[in-house]
Amino acid sequence: MAGKISPSMMCVDFRRLEESVRAMEQAGVEYLHFDIMDGHFVPNFTLGPDFISCVREMTNIPFDYHLMVERPELLLSVFDIRKGDIVTVHQEASIHLQRTLQQIRDMGARPSVALNPATPVYALDEVMDDLELVLIMTVNPGFAGQKLVPSTIRKIAGLKERLRAGGHSHVEIEVDGNVSWDNAAKMRHAGADIFVAGTSSVFRKDEDIQALLAKFRSCIA
Amino acid sequence: MAGKISPSMMCVDFRRLEESVRAMEQAGVEYLHFDIMDGHFVPNFTLGPDFISCVREMTNIPFDYHLMVERPELLLSVFDIRKGDIVTVHQEASIHLQRTLQQIRDMGARPSVALNPATPVYALDEVMDDLELVLIMTVNPGFAGQKLVPSTIRKIAGLKERLRAGGHSHVEIEVDGNVSWDNAAKMRHAGADIFVAGTSSVFRKDEDIQALLAKFRSCIA
Amino acid sequence: MAGKISPSMMCVDFRRLEESVRAMEQAGVEYLHFDIMDGHFVPNFTLGPDFISCVREMTNIPFDYHLMVERPELLLSVFDIRKGDIVTVHQEASIHLQRTLQQIRDMGARPSVALNPATPVYALDEVMDDLELVLIMTVNPGFAGQKLVPSTIRKIAGLKERLRAGGHSHVEIEVDGNVSWDNAAKMRHAGADIFVAGTSSVFRKDEDIQALLAKFRSCIA
Amino acid sequence: MAGKISPSMMCVDFRRLEESVRAMEQAGVEYLHFDIMDGHFVPNFTLGPDFISCVREMTNIPFDYHLMVERPELLLSVFDIRKGDIVTVHQEASIHLQRTLQQIRDMGARPSVALNPATPVYALDEVMDDLELVLIMTVNPGFAGQKLVPSTIRKIAGLKERLRAGGHSHVEIEVDGNVSWDNAAKMRHAGADIFVAGTSSVFRKDEDIQALLAKFRSCIA
Amino acid sequence: MAGKISPSMMCVDFRRLEESVRAMEQAGVEYLHFDIMDGHFVPNFTLGPDFISCVREMTNIPFDYHLMVERPELLLSVFDIRKGDIVTVHQEASIHLQRTLQQIRDMGARPSVALNPATPVYALDEVMDDLELVLIMTVNPGFAGQKLVPSTIRKIAGLKERLRAGGHSHVEIEVDGNVSWDNAAKMRHAGADIFVAGTSSVFRKDEDIQALLAKFRSCIA
Amino acid sequence: MAGKISPSMMCVDFRRLEESVRAMEQAGVEYLHFDIMDGHFVPNFTLGPDFISCVREMTNIPFDYHLMVERPELLLSVFDIRKGDIVTVHQEASIHLQRTLQQIRDMGARPSVALNPATPVYALDEVMDDLELVLIMTVNPGFAGQKLVPSTIRKIAGLKERLRAGGHSHVEIEVDGNVSWDNAAKMRHAGADIFVAGTSSVFRKDEDIQALLAKFRSCIA
Repeated sequence: MAGKISPSMMCVDFRRLEESVRAMEQAGVEYLHFDIMDGHFVPNFTLGPDFISCVREMTNIPFDYHLMVERPELLLSVFDIRKGDIVTVHQEASIHLQRTLQQIRDMGARPSVALNPATPVYALDEVMDDLELVLIMTVNPGFAGQKLVPSTIRKIAGLKERLRAGGHSHVEIEVDGNVSWDNAAKMRHAGADIFVAGTSSVFRKDEDIQALLAKFRSCIA
Repeated sequence: MAGKISPSMMCVDFRRLEESVRAMEQAGVEYLHFDIMDGHFVPNFTLGPDFISCVREMTNIPFDYHLMVERPELLLSVFDIRKGDIVTVHQEASIHLQRTLQQIRDMGARPSVALNPATPVYALDEVMDDLELVLIMTVNPGFAGQKLVPSTIRKIAGLKERLRAGGHSHVEIEVDGNVSWDNAAKMRHAGADIFVAGTSSVFRKDEDIQALLAKFRSCIA
Repeated sequence: MAGKISPSMMCVDFRRLEESVRAMEQAGVEYLHFDIMDGHFVPNFTLGPDFISCVREMTNIPFDYHLMVERPELLLSVFDIRKGDIVTVHQEASIHLQRTLQQIRDMGARPSVALNPATPVYALDEVMDDLELVLIMTVNPGFAGQKLVPSTIRKIAGLKERLRAGGHSHVEIEVDGNVSWDNAAKMRHAGADIFVAGTSSVFRKDEDIQALLAKFRSCIA
Repeated sequence: MAGKISPSMMCVDFRRLEESVRAMEQAGVEYLHFDIMDGHFVPNFTLGPDFISCVREMTNIPFDYHLMVERPELLLSVFDIRKGDIVTVHQEASIHLQRTLQQIRDMGARPSVALNPATPVYALDEVMDDLELVLIMTVNPGFAGQKLVPSTIRKIAGLKERLRAGGHSHVEIEVDGNVSWDNAAKMRHAGADIFVAGTSSVFRKDEDIQALLAKFRSCIA
Repeated sequence: MAGKISPSMMCVDFRRLEESVRAMEQAGVEYLHFDIMDGHFVPNFTLGPDFISCVREMTNIPFDYHLMVERPELLLSVFDIRKGDIVTVHQEASIHLQRTLQQIRDMGARPSVALNPATPVYALDEVMDDLELVLIMTVNPGFAGQKLVPSTIRKIAGLKERLRAGGHSHVEIEVDGNVSWDNAAKMRHAGADIFVAGTSSVFRKDEDIQALLAKFRSCIA
Repeated sequence: MAGKISPSMMCVDFRRLEESVRAMEQAGVEYLHFDIMDGHFVPNFTLGPDFISCVREMTNIPFDYHLMVERPELLLSVFDIRKGDIVTVHQEASIHLQRTLQQIRDMGARPSVALNPATPVYALDEVMDDLELVLIMTVNPGFAGQKLVPSTIRKIAGLKERLRAGGHSHVEIEVDGNVSWDNAAKMRHAGADIFVAGTSSVFRKDEDIQALLAKFRSCIA
């Protein structure tokens, strides 16, 4: 299975929103990644439901919600979640994680859990039947433009092996944080399936997003 | 002094961002209003610093930040606040309100405090020397499209009188929430100076924003 | 208008629940008072929806919910609230109090706000149009069997006068905490309308609840 | 050692409290299970110390407290805990878990830790010397009437094996959540010792609790 | 009644602790002021019970505890509070303020409430019978060496008048924050009774504390 | 490598601060240990930056900060941290632990993580490249004078082995809590490198600290 791309919409040029979405459609990106921040789980803010709904009216690309928020179960209902979307909550933010994943599945979406760099992969051992994806944060969440935490490459490989050994090979591994050309290739080699592409690769001032997406594809082939 | 307009950017058509900003410039709006929500102080999310910075590159209209967040003093630094911008924090969200207002003034911005519909105006008696504006919420914060809380019109008038009596007539009154044509006129009459214009007035699907802004001006003349 | 009685169900003899409810019906009590505690707003626990629903199956007396909980707006939905019930939230526990009161009204219930002994009555000035009752705590909430805070009698009188002066005389005053025979009379004299009757009066081991209720009626005549 | 029964008192018919307790005594249930909820750790409320004390006056059956509350160490003192009672706190709710377990032991009670479905059993590796029971939640806590999380059966077996391997075979395994006739048998087979019996088995409207308890016994023999 | 001095022990030269305490005894200071900070109510830390107990062994001067902490009622018991000590909690930090004040009185100490610069004095109207002192913060709490908030001088005078009018003239007014020679005189004139003396006056590197205390006395005569 | 000593400054005789620091210098202690408590992560208070700065002026011994506080990343900046100091945060208190450790390293200090007795060592598996020390709490944090949690000796040995197996043998193990003569020897044998010495060993009323430190050295040789 080829690697999939989920461009991070917090990095889009908001002045060229529609044009950028078209380019991403033409490049065949598999998801559009939306970062949601609450100023508490992470000390920053990004996008909200109004902006996301506006993008929904432009395209049928499935959405990939990354909720960097405390108690995400209380906030799922503010989003217009659709069948086939990914909804990711953080393991560190939810004390009833299995219920939250079930709630996401009941909405028709693909349940996913994100792990901060410091969180071991076995924190997910008891929810492997309840999720379809694991999002490995390869930087600490909250800001674009950070440097890769090197040990997370090894962590991807460890998760891949753990999924295989536990009979959960169908679970996809998503990666987010400093996914540059070079890092994407390393992550792919370690076992990553879906790549959140941001300012390290496909969103660069005055460069053609479609060409950048094509180059990205080749890195994760 | 004529009433001022601060269109709410969470209501903008994101597909026509630049075009809308140009229209607002031409209509001479005094501020652009940015709602920041943390999912905790209010159960919703909206915009963040990346979007706001993108708008800053387009225009010199001063910005009007409305922080609907708990402990705003910890989060001021994520925004690129400029001289002449308004920064509004909620009285209900800050236990060291005088310090937060001083922090805002030290950044060169205009310090402002917002009051929820349930909060009495005398909650601000001890910070009158420290603020330049009071934002009266005329709906409960968190969502666009709500109905006016009727008693807030009387509250505006009460605040106007209290400011006059206390020698603080230079403090401006901003209003936010269901500021329709009719309500805007009532609020103006009660003493409001700055009007956050949203989906009740200037942002309407397929209507010309510049014409709507002109109509709005006439309501608050 | 005669005083009304709202016996506190946390004081009932749970072994004689049905028998006690019958006695209260026969005595014509106007409400049944249910204390809900979250261990955080107050350091104790009491009753929950299952117990309350069981009582609902026994009687048509309207219910009087007293939510001693943080963020009550998130928890209203766990209760089977009916038209004509009172639902009381604490001023100290809700930052969007007007919205919460509106939510209660939308459920068909009578919106009410409780004030801790330390909270001044003018904290409610801006929600007077949104409530039907004010609950004056005459002890600090959380435990049965506490001693009256003497200054709260004066507070009842002050509220009565403030309601009258503001044109809100229809708002009822409920009192809760050490409502003994003597204190009930004083509270009645000060202006209280509804009396939460507990272990200080109508719930006494091995005494006849109906006789005690009759005596209570005479104190608040 | 035969399986033990701990009927969940939040499911009792409160109108027939004394009669139900007598039936449970006659059926020889080993514990009475009391759920305590704080509206925060779980979004619901149930029972409190007054109700529990009332039951204590009726019977000598040991009590089984299940504290679904944040920071349980602050709230232990509101309960009349006796020698031989079980007191269960959640691993997810206590950052000084070893101290809390020691506190419970110092009160003469049996220390126990509950694990949500998502929490791996090795979260308890360092407190195995400090506890006498582990409570495996087989649904997410907070509500009666939920459906079994299937993977929790495997989790029980995994814990049993881990206890054996670590020399902690004396630690009992309690199970709570959708413990129906069928599920109880599976849980017993996987290694469960104490069964919280609720609406899925022994509390059924208009059925005889003693007959239901007898049937339950046979399922966990 | 002459002004009283309460030197702030967080400003003492810890190398000359005993010598400094002796000097303060000889200067006849009425209290020793201990600031307690929790890193949350204020973003700083200072002293704790071990240090305070050590000072207690040196002297009989009554202690003046200033708890800049959230939920002070949970933390009173870690201090060795004695008859005649002042214990101050913040109005902004305690939702059951009347109970907390009663708790302090029950320990034999003098109950006191502190107000941040932004908090109006009428927030205390309902606890006037329960306190012996009000502490007016003349800077925002948390750090030594800050500049006076000018409007707090007027606030002291307003409180003095309110106490007089309400029949609470026996309540003492304490002031804390940038109490320099000049400011002390102004505060005294406005009605302050007890002065927290810190780095702005009596604790100055290489200057004689006893001479500085004498000078301070003269400013508040 | 010989064992190192880090005397706990919260146990020092504050009346003989300078004299005690001199004695510790002469005994060649490797660190001075400062406990910081926030009243929330642990229900107690101790020392703050002013006291610590005062000690810094007396000596060049590196400092060993132990932050028993929630969200330590927000509070690092209040301390004057120097190159070569140890800064320890709790695994249980920080959801972005890798970022916090990086922040400490960027300040030039040695990053360290503390584990409560109940926390398994594999909670640190993903931050092994980011830390230089692990602090094993051998009592529950918050108070001096507690009794050893016996299983923590085994935990030290388990960590030592895990460090060796994972290629992290350079990571030092620090121990804190009831480090008496006997326990220190056992901890040393299990693999501890740095010992926080308190009232169980080197701080004893009327005993010579230098002799006690010499005896301590011999226990950890």
